[in-house]
Amino acid sequence: MDSTSDGVYSKYYAQLELLRRRKPLIHHIVNYVAMNDCANVTLSLGALPVMTHHPEELEDIVSRSSALYLNLGTPDQERFHSMLLALRLAERYGVPVVLDLVGVGATRFRGTMAAKILGDSHVGVVKGNGGEVLGLLGGVGGVRGVDSAVEVEPRVASEASEKYGCVVAVTGVTDYVASGGRLCRIEGGSDMFTRITGAGDMAGSVVASFLAVNTDPFDACVGGLATFKAAGSLSAAKCRGPGSFRTQLFDELFNFGVDGYSHVKISFEEV
Amino acid sequence: MDSTSDGVYSKYYAQLELLRRRKPLIHHIVNYVAMNDCANVTLSLGALPVMTHHPEELEDIVSRSSALYLNLGTPDQERFHSMLLALRLAERYGVPVVLDLVGVGATRFRGTMAAKILGDSHVGVVKGNGGEVLGLLGGVGGVRGVDSAVEVEPRVASEASEKYGCVVAVTGVTDYVASGGRLCRIEGGSDMFTRITGAGDMAGSVVASFLAVNTDPFDACVGGLATFKAAGSLSAAKCRGPGSFRTQLFDELFNFGVDGYSHVKISFEEV
Amino acid sequence: MDSTSDGVYSKYYAQLELLRRRKPLIHHIVNYVAMNDCANVTLSLGALPVMTHHPEELEDIVSRSSALYLNLGTPDQERFHSMLLALRLAERYGVPVVLDLVGVGATRFRGTMAAKILGDSHVGVVKGNGGEVLGLLGGVGGVRGVDSAVEVEPRVASEASEKYGCVVAVTGVTDYVASGGRLCRIEGGSDMFTRITGAGDMAGSVVASFLAVNTDPFDACVGGLATFKAAGSLSAAKCRGPGSFRTQLFDELFNFGVDGYSHVKISFEEV
Repeated sequence: MDSTSDGVYSKYYAQLELLRRRKPLIHHIVNYVAMNDCANVTLSLGALPVMTHHPEELEDIVSRSSALYLNLGTPDQERFHSMLLALRLAERYGVPVVLDLVGVGATRFRGTMAAKILGDSHVGVVKGNGGEVLGLLGGVGGVRGVDSAVEVEPRVASEASEKYGCVVAVTGVTDYVASGGRLCRIEGGSDMFTRITGAGDMAGSVVASFLAVNTDPFDACVGGLATFKAAGSLSAAKCRGPGSFRTQLFDELFNFGVDGYSHVKISFEEV
Repeated sequence: MDSTSDGVYSKYYAQLELLRRRKPLIHHIVNYVAMNDCANVTLSLGALPVMTHHPEELEDIVSRSSALYLNLGTPDQERFHSMLLALRLAERYGVPVVLDLVGVGATRFRGTMAAKILGDSHVGVVKGNGGEVLGLLGGVGGVRGVDSAVEVEPRVASEASEKYGCVVAVTGVTDYVASGGRLCRIEGGSDMFTRITGAGDMAGSVVASFLAVNTDPFDACVGGLATFKAAGSLSAAKCRGPGSFRTQLFDELFNFGVDGYSHVKISFEEV
Repeated sequence: MDSTSDGVYSKYYAQLELLRRRKPLIHHIVNYVAMNDCANVTLSLGALPVMTHHPEELEDIVSRSSALYLNLGTPDQERFHSMLLALRLAERYGVPVVLDLVGVGATRFRGTMAAKILGDSHVGVVKGNGGEVLGLLGGVGGVRGVDSAVEVEPRVASEASEKYGCVVAVTGVTDYVASGGRLCRIEGGSDMFTRITGAGDMAGSVVASFLAVNTDPFDACVGGLATFKAAGSLSAAKCRGPGSFRTQLFDELFNFGVDGYSHVKISFEEV
């Protein structure tokens, strides 16, 4: 099945419009490098970000949030414990969770963090680049730093989805989203994403924002990644380098219309 | 009394010029999301930012600073203790203090932090959006995240000013600044401020910078907020979205001239 | 000896080209204000940044890195201990180290940190502005904040280089790089560097990136600072203020060609 028809596009655009109307609160526990970028991308899209990890206020925040986004970058013991606490609260309040595998495969500690978080099992979407998802599966990712790119076969997404029982997204030149037997490919975007920091982290914010207004995590993940990738294509066409690309990216997400989806190719298959 | 005359404008511009000549040092203890934005806005304006919360160096920094800016975002126990220590040092060295109520009303913990800081009473200016100042007064702010906007009546600023005995600024579509029986309204700005993170935090940096060169905290607060709002109006006219708005904002503050104040309406009344 | 010939320029450009091909991993332990800027400048240049300070993952990161960049801004006890641990690992794995003296001279605590780190002696390049290097030498730096500029005589660089037995760079309107009896002057750049935060921190990332592909730390330091200064000159010519300067800076580093070096004057002398 290959469906790049306007029907699919307008489905994702309807999600985006819903998000813009509802302005869902997205609770982030993310790394210090991309914190500002994640907040800005969430606001550009039309949702509301909140960043905190203090244990004493997690319940007040999680209970009012429409999605929780956990991101393993720049870890420390304190925020790791906050993530586990936030996760339990998200389960109690029925808040969907996105986990970003930043640096898994690069350090053993991040692998341990990921395993502990996934053991708690209330994660709807796991996201990482090729090396990170390989690292999660115990393969040798050859990951050099958190901004490196390792392209993998789409079956890596399917295997991880089967193993952890959730939606798994592998981002890269082509994004793959797997859920059980379903697989989606998203092509497009720009090489410029590899020349700015926080591209993957911001993609996670966008996916969490879509998840906040859509109860189907597979669909929300595809919608979020397609929107972000398409905004990247649009930005790349107008930029001179990574600085102007980043500025454009926020503008393009803010102005994103249904036509934007023509800049990505979305295709589905059964595996 | 309504005074939007050139006389008022040139008064604020004289403050800005003084600030640019003196380059006062502004000590920030601010949240991790907006730290970079606050430093950049302070430099664009012409003052010098310094960010640190390590207890062992607070005295060396506070004693040389011309203003201290405390901001409750992304709190942790360690930085909260540093804020209380910095506050005592500011009192000892006669350094004026601005408190930004980020997230008060959204979590009980932030309310506790604010109450403890204000109990120490050496705060010259308290700043927050409508929901945050309502939260401070014990009202139900209905605050969703730190970037949400709740518009309130100007008497909320006056009540908080009376209760805490300091200047209180409530920012929003219209900014209100209250001090005892005085009330100022600042109209203008741009809706784009709600689509970038850190707008309120940056406004706090600008107010602290004005406070560093003006012993009247009411006047300094009005001057700072009017300058920031006007720079926002100017930026909005030249931007395509939140990314370019943010870039413009730094440029407009850097180039800000006396004519810039024509983009805001400043009016005063006795209450 | 004065050598601003094309021969010198093409030597630095060859380093830059090598860096772009190899994409070395640069481990940063830097302050929270400039963390995002440092990551972006490293990516714009063509290297790969990684930011972490968690003790449990330092060995996994340092052992794969081609340079380690330590930066004293926004210090806390935990990250200071991580710096000392990372330094020992860098020595074990033969990874070259750059130390940025952010705030030395402004607080006694930073002076203590710098002395402890330099006592461990595996530092290849020490970098600071005039006040910071004076502070390191025990002079009265008169440093006001971390973004202030104190212009010093070039012998300050030479004295510090002799005292600590490593390459010392003093940045400012003119940059000085000293190593033993050698001294290099780099002229050019832009006043705009003083109107954005993180300029010095980003210069440190660029120096560390050059050090990752060049075993001569003096040469690497000159190449890195010359490239960054020249990119600043190019950006200043196209900007309206600090916001657009910063955006341009990333674009200019990304597009930097051998002709870019004509925007700086590099001269050498024996001292």
